[in-house]
Amino acid sequence: MALVTLITDFGLEDEYVGLMKGAILTLDPQARIVDVTHAVTPGDVEQAAFMLAAAYPYFPAGSIHLVVVDPGVGTERRLLCLACEGRIFLAPDNGVLTFPLVRAEGLWCIDDPAFRRDMVSATFHGRDILAPAAGHLSRGLPPHRLGPAAAPQSAVRLDGLEPDTEPDGTIRGRIVHIDRFGNLVTNIARHRLAADPADASAGSVSVRIGGRTLSGIRETYGRVPVGEPLALFGSRGFLEIAVNRGSAREYFGCRRGDPVRVRP
Amino acid sequence: MALVTLITDFGLEDEYVGLMKGAILTLDPQARIVDVTHAVTPGDVEQAAFMLAAAYPYFPAGSIHLVVVDPGVGTERRLLCLACEGRIFLAPDNGVLTFPLVRAEGLWCIDDPAFRRDMVSATFHGRDILAPAAGHLSRGLPPHRLGPAAAPQSAVRLDGLEPDTEPDGTIRGRIVHIDRFGNLVTNIARHRLAADPADASAGSVSVRIGGRTLSGIRETYGRVPVGEPLALFGSRGFLEIAVNRGSAREYFGCRRGDPVRVRP
Amino acid sequence: MALVTLITDFGLEDEYVGLMKGAILTLDPQARIVDVTHAVTPGDVEQAAFMLAAAYPYFPAGSIHLVVVDPGVGTERRLLCLACEGRIFLAPDNGVLTFPLVRAEGLWCIDDPAFRRDMVSATFHGRDILAPAAGHLSRGLPPHRLGPAAAPQSAVRLDGLEPDTEPDGTIRGRIVHIDRFGNLVTNIARHRLAADPADASAGSVSVRIGGRTLSGIRETYGRVPVGEPLALFGSRGFLEIAVNRGSAREYFGCRRGDPVRVRP
Repeated sequence: MALVTLITDFGLEDEYVGLMKGAILTLDPQARIVDVTHAVTPGDVEQAAFMLAAAYPYFPAGSIHLVVVDPGVGTERRLLCLACEGRIFLAPDNGVLTFPLVRAEGLWCIDDPAFRRDMVSATFHGRDILAPAAGHLSRGLPPHRLGPAAAPQSAVRLDGLEPDTEPDGTIRGRIVHIDRFGNLVTNIARHRLAADPADASAGSVSVRIGGRTLSGIRETYGRVPVGEPLALFGSRGFLEIAVNRGSAREYFGCRRGDPVRVRP
Repeated sequence: MALVTLITDFGLEDEYVGLMKGAILTLDPQARIVDVTHAVTPGDVEQAAFMLAAAYPYFPAGSIHLVVVDPGVGTERRLLCLACEGRIFLAPDNGVLTFPLVRAEGLWCIDDPAFRRDMVSATFHGRDILAPAAGHLSRGLPPHRLGPAAAPQSAVRLDGLEPDTEPDGTIRGRIVHIDRFGNLVTNIARHRLAADPADASAGSVSVRIGGRTLSGIRETYGRVPVGEPLALFGSRGFLEIAVNRGSAREYFGCRRGDPVRVRP
Repeated sequence: MALVTLITDFGLEDEYVGLMKGAILTLDPQARIVDVTHAVTPGDVEQAAFMLAAAYPYFPAGSIHLVVVDPGVGTERRLLCLACEGRIFLAPDNGVLTFPLVRAEGLWCIDDPAFRRDMVSATFHGRDILAPAAGHLSRGLPPHRLGPAAAPQSAVRLDGLEPDTEPDGTIRGRIVHIDRFGNLVTNIARHRLAADPADASAGSVSVRIGGRTLSGIRETYGRVPVGEPLALFGSRGFLEIAVNRGSAREYFGCRRGDPVRVRP
C-alpha cells in the first residue's frame, strides 16, 4: 500500500476527483489518497509545476504523486512515469514535472494497455490511465512495467522558472503564486540571497514590488505592526511578500507574474 | 469494511460533511470514505441524480453510495436503502435515486431506531440516520435489517431526464451540467446517435446550441484549433459542447437547462 | 492509530492542508484524517472556536482535534495540547480552545523539539509542529511527553461567546455563523429556553431579528410554507433562523454578529 497524492485543475464541483479516487481504490483498496490541491487554474501547467515542487518533499519516501493538468488530453502528448528521490511521479508530458526531472532516476512512457481501464475515454486520461497506473504501482507493480523507458532529456521542461541575476547582484524574480491569505510567493529561493541570512534580516537587502520598497527580511508576520507589509522567507522556502494580519494582494494590487526585485 | 461515497449539497464551508464522516467512522473506523462532490446546488435533486449516475459505475462492487440532498428533511418523506448492481444506495425518497432505481434488486425504508443516533435532530438526517446506516452496512449489517421492504414502484422518480426524439430523427436534449472548465454536458447518451460512431465523427450530424450549429462530433478538444468550439462525447458518455482550451459556457453564454438539438 | 480531525483557515486552493496531512502520515501512516472545515475566515479565532464546539462531540473518544487558525504564528504565543472528555486538542493558545477548556483534564505546552520537524519554519507551525505532534500522539505518544504542563487558567479564553439574559427574561444573543444554505446560527443554546420545549414550539416565544419578529419555534423547515422564515433549533443544538427552501441570509439581509433577541 502506498500514499498517493493528487494535484489537478479539476476543482471540487464536479465528480472528476472522486472518480480518480474510485479508479485507484478499485485496484488498491488500501491506498491512502491525499489531496494536495485541485484548484490549479484550468490548464495552467506552470502553476501545477510550482505546486508540485512545494508539496512533494513533505510526503514520505515511497509516495506516488499524480498530477493531472492536461490541456492536451487525447492528443499525441505522452503520459510519463518518473522515478526520483525514492518517489514516483505520474503526469502528462507537458512540463508539470520540470522540477523533479532534474533528478530523474528513471522515466517511462505509460503505454501498456494492461494497466488502464478497458474503456479509455479521449478526454479523461486522469481517470482512465493515470489513476489506474497509480493503483497498480500502489499494489507493487514496478514502474518499468508501465511501458518503454524514455530519455529524461526528451521530456518537456518549462523555461523561465528561475529568477535572473543582474551584474550588480540584483535578483529579478516574479510572483508565481498568491495564496489564500493574499501572500505573494516569489520564485526567489532562500539560497539566492546572502549565505548568511542574518545579513538579510538586518536590513541589508531591499525588496522592490509594485512601486514600493521594503527594507530587510523579517522572520514572521508579527514582526511588523498589524496592517504593515513585510518580506520574509515563507514556508515554501521562497521569498514572500505579506501584510501582518492583512492581504499583500490587496495592499500592493499585484497579480501572479508581476516582477519582484531584490537588491543586496 | 466498505468504500462509502458521498454526494451532498452541503458545501465545504460548514462542519456538515465532517460530521457525517465522524458518524460513519464512529461505527466503522475502517470504512473508506470518498467525496464525490458536496457542491450540488442546495436542494437540487435533479443535479444530484445526474451526478450519482455519472459517478457510481467507477467505484467497485460492494460500495455504499450516500446521497444527501434533502430539502424535505424532517417531514414525512422516507429515507431509502436501495440494492442494485452489487451496490447499496442510501438517500431520501425524492428522486435522487431515479437512475439506479431502474435496476432495483431490493428496496427498504430506513426505519429501525436501533441503527441511528440516539438523538435525531429534525434537520440533519444525513448525520443522524443516513451516515449511521452507512456505518452499520459497512460493518456488515444486511440492508434488510434497516427497516421494512418497499416496492420499487413506490419510490419517487424524476420525469423528463431523457431527451425526446422527433419524427425526423432530431434529438431534443438539454444541458444538465456545466463543469469547472465550462464544458456543457447534455443528457444525450452516445447510444442515442448512430450505431456506428464513425458516421458521427465524419460530420454526418449537426449540433444546434445557443443559436449556432456545430458540424460533426470530434474525438477530443485538441482536434479543433485553440479557442474553437466542438461537440464530443465526454467522459460521462454523454454529448458535450466544449471549446479547446476555453470555456463553452462563456463562448455560448449558456445555462443549465438550455436546449441542445442534434440532427442526424 | 487515531482519528485526526482538522479545522483551519487555510482554504483548499493552496498546498497547506495537504502538507499537514503529509506530516501526519509520515509519522503514522495508519492515521485516519477527517477535514471538518478549512474555510474559517483567515485569522478568525472566534469562528474557529464555534466550529470546533459544533464538531468535536460527533467524533469518537480517542480522537485528536487539530485547530490551526494562528495569526500570531512565529511570535511568542504558545502551542497547546489539551486533554478533555477522552480527546486531545492541539492548537495555538489564542482562544480557539475556549469551549473544551472548561472541562480541561490536562494541559501541556508543545515544546519538545524531539516531536517536531527538524526544520521549523517561522510561518507554518501547523505543518512543522502541530501536525507532527498529532502524528506522534496517533502512534501512541502520551500527551505529557510533548512538553511541560500548563495551568488551564493560564490559557487564553474568548469573552462574550454566551448570550446575555435581561431582567425580564429576554435573551440577547447574536449570529455566530451563517451556513451554506443561508441559515443564521445563533449562540443561544436550547437549554437557555423553557425547560419544556413544547412550550416554545407552541408559539410562546418570539424571536426578534433584522427588524422582524418570528412567533414560536418550529421543528423543521417544512413546517412553514416554501419561502417563509422560521426559527428552529438547528443540528448544532442552537437557535437558528431559516427560510424553507430559501436563504435567511438573503431574506433578512443579516451578517455574522448581528443581534437576535428571544422573548419568552
